[in-house]
Amino acid sequence: MKKLSVVGIGPGNESYLSISAKETLKDSDLIVGYSKYVELVKEYFPEKNYLSTPMTKEVDRCRMALEKASEYNIVSVVCSGDAGVYGMAALVYELSVDFPDVDINIVPGISAVLSGSAVLGAPIGHDFAVISLSDLLTPWELIEKRLKLAGEGDFCICLYNPSSHKRKDYLKRACEILLNFKEEDTICGYVRNIGRIGEEYHILSLLELKEIEVDMFTTVFIGNSNTKVINNKMVTPRGYKGI
Amino acid sequence: MKKLSVVGIGPGNESYLSISAKETLKDSDLIVGYSKYVELVKEYFPEKNYLSTPMTKEVDRCRMALEKASEYNIVSVVCSGDAGVYGMAALVYELSVDFPDVDINIVPGISAVLSGSAVLGAPIGHDFAVISLSDLLTPWELIEKRLKLAGEGDFCICLYNPSSHKRKDYLKRACEILLNFKEEDTICGYVRNIGRIGEEYHILSLLELKEIEVDMFTTVFIGNSNTKVINNKMVTPRGYKGI
Repeated sequence: MKKLSVVGIGPGNESYLSISAKETLKDSDLIVGYSKYVELVKEYFPEKNYLSTPMTKEVDRCRMALEKASEYNIVSVVCSGDAGVYGMAALVYELSVDFPDVDINIVPGISAVLSGSAVLGAPIGHDFAVISLSDLLTPWELIEKRLKLAGEGDFCICLYNPSSHKRKDYLKRACEILLNFKEEDTICGYVRNIGRIGEEYHILSLLELKEIEVDMFTTVFIGNSNTKVINNKMVTPRGYKGI
Repeated sequence: MKKLSVVGIGPGNESYLSISAKETLKDSDLIVGYSKYVELVKEYFPEKNYLSTPMTKEVDRCRMALEKASEYNIVSVVCSGDAGVYGMAALVYELSVDFPDVDINIVPGISAVLSGSAVLGAPIGHDFAVISLSDLLTPWELIEKRLKLAGEGDFCICLYNPSSHKRKDYLKRACEILLNFKEEDTICGYVRNIGRIGEEYHILSLLELKEIEVDMFTTVFIGNSNTKVINNKMVTPRGYKGI
């Protein structure tokens, strides 16, 4: 069997790579990925063979990786964050039906919901929902429905892809929906450039978040009704007694 | 300032430790944790000082770690999975108001929603909700409400703490709630002993899951309406066209 690994590399700095991800990349003959992530990995493994495709070429990229798996011995597809959370893992499996001789291996990574959470403090200390605001592959109506239900359920919420050039007002629209279920002063936070140069975080109310413009390198967190600020960190208690 | 790190160690095998978590533990003078996790970490760093408390003694454990931070230079609290997902991070922040000279640092880790997902394939390839079925700290009514809403929103769902000696029928109750919103043949999966000796996974329908008894070392995944089985893996497509 030929081997194809789908590897989550975490937020982008080497220290958040898992040991398993590092070993897998070290053993790979070819590493395939979105050009930006390939650049990150090249810093640590400059001697490898690389192939990259631009953003929105995910299907081509994964098919190429499966094809190359027959040519090289060990091929890896790299994803930022985790391999499965809005990553390439599902797509590789979907395409793999045409490549029965390729054995697929998923190496998890620290997704932005976890790395961003660590920067902010402990925002997802209780039940949480992860929702992408990108409507490229998902109808906006479904995103809206999920926001409503997550708001109604008092979940902590983590928003991926909160903005892009074409979707500048999506975060505002999401906040407007959530304000029907959550208080205006619900504690929120956002983190930009997690684990990279220029990392920054901000803590603010849901009402304030509604007016903020963020970029595509930002992950947004919305607290539940118990979330509080402790020492400039965003903290959602689990509910332990005797504190 | 004294330093206290809350470190997510992943599912328990060394290969899923992040490089940052490993470095943090290596630099620590004292490592504090639930006895089971302390045993795991001791294997890799046998020369360290350790303190452990039994399960349900989380408040004592975290307070002890904050107290010891004044005595030792660098103290770490270890959590299985991630530091923030049902971990000790929030509790440490809550208790830290009495220890203003201790600087808290969160090191994220690969939580069971990610490590379990990698074993099953790609079950959380779209928006997902993470819900704990433990009602020790959360009223069952709230858990039930969140299950309903997550079901109604067609989220992929990951269940933590699906069972214990006292809560043998909770997974069944959760499935019964979800069956009001999801089809009987919705693809589900569960993973036992993730990343440890005896790791096993199973893929089955929601109707079948309702009849399964799992233990406390199990993480459960419930697919959305698009989740399918490909080559004995659980795969939730993101929705890419042209496959």
